[in-house]
Amino acid sequence: MSLQFKIEARSGAARRGRLLTPHGEVETPVFMPVGTLASVKGVSQDILEDLGVQILLGNTYHLYLRPGVAQVRKLGGLHRFMSWPRAILSDSGGFQVFSLNELRKVTEEGVTFRSHLDGSSHFFSPESAMDIQIGLGADIIMAFDECTEYPADQTRMRASMELTLRWAERSKKYFEAHKHEVPWATNHLGTAALGRPGERELAVNAGGGARETQTQALFGIVQGGMDTALRRESAERTIEIDFPGYAVGGLSVGEPRARTREVVESTVAHLPVDKPRYLMGVGTPEEIVEYARMGIDMMDCVLPTRAARHGLLFTSEGKVSIKQARYAGDEGPLDPNCGCRVCARYSRAYLRHLYASNEVLAQVLNTVHNLSFYLDTMRAVRHSI
Amino acid sequence: MSLQFKIEARSGAARRGRLLTPHGEVETPVFMPVGTLASVKGVSQDILEDLGVQILLGNTYHLYLRPGVAQVRKLGGLHRFMSWPRAILSDSGGFQVFSLNELRKVTEEGVTFRSHLDGSSHFFSPESAMDIQIGLGADIIMAFDECTEYPADQTRMRASMELTLRWAERSKKYFEAHKHEVPWATNHLGTAALGRPGERELAVNAGGGARETQTQALFGIVQGGMDTALRRESAERTIEIDFPGYAVGGLSVGEPRARTREVVESTVAHLPVDKPRYLMGVGTPEEIVEYARMGIDMMDCVLPTRAARHGLLFTSEGKVSIKQARYAGDEGPLDPNCGCRVCARYSRAYLRHLYASNEVLAQVLNTVHNLSFYLDTMRAVRHSI
Repeated sequence: MSLQFKIEARSGAARRGRLLTPHGEVETPVFMPVGTLASVKGVSQDILEDLGVQILLGNTYHLYLRPGVAQVRKLGGLHRFMSWPRAILSDSGGFQVFSLNELRKVTEEGVTFRSHLDGSSHFFSPESAMDIQIGLGADIIMAFDECTEYPADQTRMRASMELTLRWAERSKKYFEAHKHEVPWATNHLGTAALGRPGERELAVNAGGGARETQTQALFGIVQGGMDTALRRESAERTIEIDFPGYAVGGLSVGEPRARTREVVESTVAHLPVDKPRYLMGVGTPEEIVEYARMGIDMMDCVLPTRAARHGLLFTSEGKVSIKQARYAGDEGPLDPNCGCRVCARYSRAYLRHLYASNEVLAQVLNTVHNLSFYLDTMRAVRHSI
Repeated sequence: MSLQFKIEARSGAARRGRLLTPHGEVETPVFMPVGTLASVKGVSQDILEDLGVQILLGNTYHLYLRPGVAQVRKLGGLHRFMSWPRAILSDSGGFQVFSLNELRKVTEEGVTFRSHLDGSSHFFSPESAMDIQIGLGADIIMAFDECTEYPADQTRMRASMELTLRWAERSKKYFEAHKHEVPWATNHLGTAALGRPGERELAVNAGGGARETQTQALFGIVQGGMDTALRRESAERTIEIDFPGYAVGGLSVGEPRARTREVVESTVAHLPVDKPRYLMGVGTPEEIVEYARMGIDMMDCVLPTRAARHGLLFTSEGKVSIKQARYAGDEGPLDPNCGCRVCARYSRAYLRHLYASNEVLAQVLNTVHNLSFYLDTMRAVRHSI
């Protein structure tokens, strides 16, 4: 078994469960911090562990460009490369190709795009996206899909959905034929022998050689634009292909939030109850609670980390824009109801000073707090189910 | 007593000792990391504590501009503002005025200069530099001096030295009249009542009200350019003014290193054996060892932190420029003989990737390692005495 999902409690549509991955257990519903380039910007791995992060997201598009999949594979895969012994999920690269490349060219075969770094030309297909994700070695990887733009007309939404379905078949076919090429197995003993802390945990997680029999898990992605009938069809036909988990993609692309909710709710109704459901790229603290209540098990978003870099902090008393002069003399903690290491030690006045002075520590502390707030939010949701 | 210095062992000219400050003990010889704007760039205070940092340096010039002394005073002083319960030393601002301001104007009264941030005009005198440093509330503060430029002729070196001596008298006079205005005492109870971790330690250090009787310690600064006879005269006349510690300033300003060593060695010979000696603004790992062997007790330098930001790392095997492609596939730790949290967990390949990808974590981890290397270096020096 490459992935097990156990549901332990239900409350309305919501479920509390556990995802067992080759690199440890993940309590769901879960928020996954984004570690684009094998790093959650500014936060070291030991702090992520202290925060209770059980699964990180890595971006295939970015890691393919830097440091490159051959390098990561040679170094034993992402877990070992970044010294992160817990679970990782990688996206397929499709969304970044869609959002970072205005000159991309989509054909039946795949997508040609230019690197945002140097303009060089590259090509992703379902097969190459699988090959890259197997080389990176995340525990959960995603089928290669087309993220339908918003707005799109009915013809375009259907054509895009059909393409994603054909790519899902090809993704699965390639994955099944190559899944044993994941870098973990061959590096298992070497890894343990080095004896660095993260690696010791890797070896423990492997459970005495059990690792060799494990592979990654490939999730399918439901598309269909903003049309609930197409979403239903996409869900049903993706389920026919058969995946151990299903993602809802193509949302948070510019549509009104009410529409997002509507599409999520109607799509979830057509997903299997016993498989994990992953809503990609959402959302605010209020939204992730709402989606968990709808029966979503996994979410990721750059919002907490990106907002932190802009001095926008989430607290139990609402959003705080720490750059404001009103905080310059504020001796209170950022969030009086937060137990994170930032709120426990520093004042708003100090955080405001760091931000106003462009100190790097501002980004570090702000990110730690925002992630802590998101993880606490999901912890509270789990406890309430 | 505002400061006690106990020498516990000697070896040649070198001494091992303890500096007792109002905010804890400092083992000497000590290297003091630079926390320019109330932050060691990228490194949180708990990591500095873990590294064993017992004393930090803050820059009066920078803190005067941001967040301003009135703000820091209102917030209880630097220790409380930045949640750093251990010792702090502040410089006088003189060196930054000298190094960051080409249009400064020096008169008998003081220095008029323009802010490097917005070009606004400001004035520092011995009196205002004391007033600012009392407001910031560092445990050890420095007399306002003129850092003589290099090269300078005999007439200029003497005139500059004489000015520094007159300013030392004025610094001491103002300090003695105002030293009880340090923000600790009035904020002592309020601080303890808030109960944040750093502040609890502050209260413990205060030792049940003993704090109220303590003040800062003002050090004198020896100048005299590169002339050893002038240095001797500067030392003798500064000692006549009588300070609890003496700094050697005006070095590392462009002169050859052999000259620096010569001036340090000859100056140290004229400083009291029972008072701490602080060599300002040096040096490489090899140099700080050498100066400690000459009988220097305290040093500070931006080198370990600044070099880290440029990917230049100090190791037991020499300097490593982590940006080099040769490290892209290097699975070994940065320094196999280093026990710091960076070397214990991450590979050179990962550190190289972070640096090459402009990840903020590169700066964080590089700085932690370089500081650890400097602190370990001084720890080894102390053990060898």
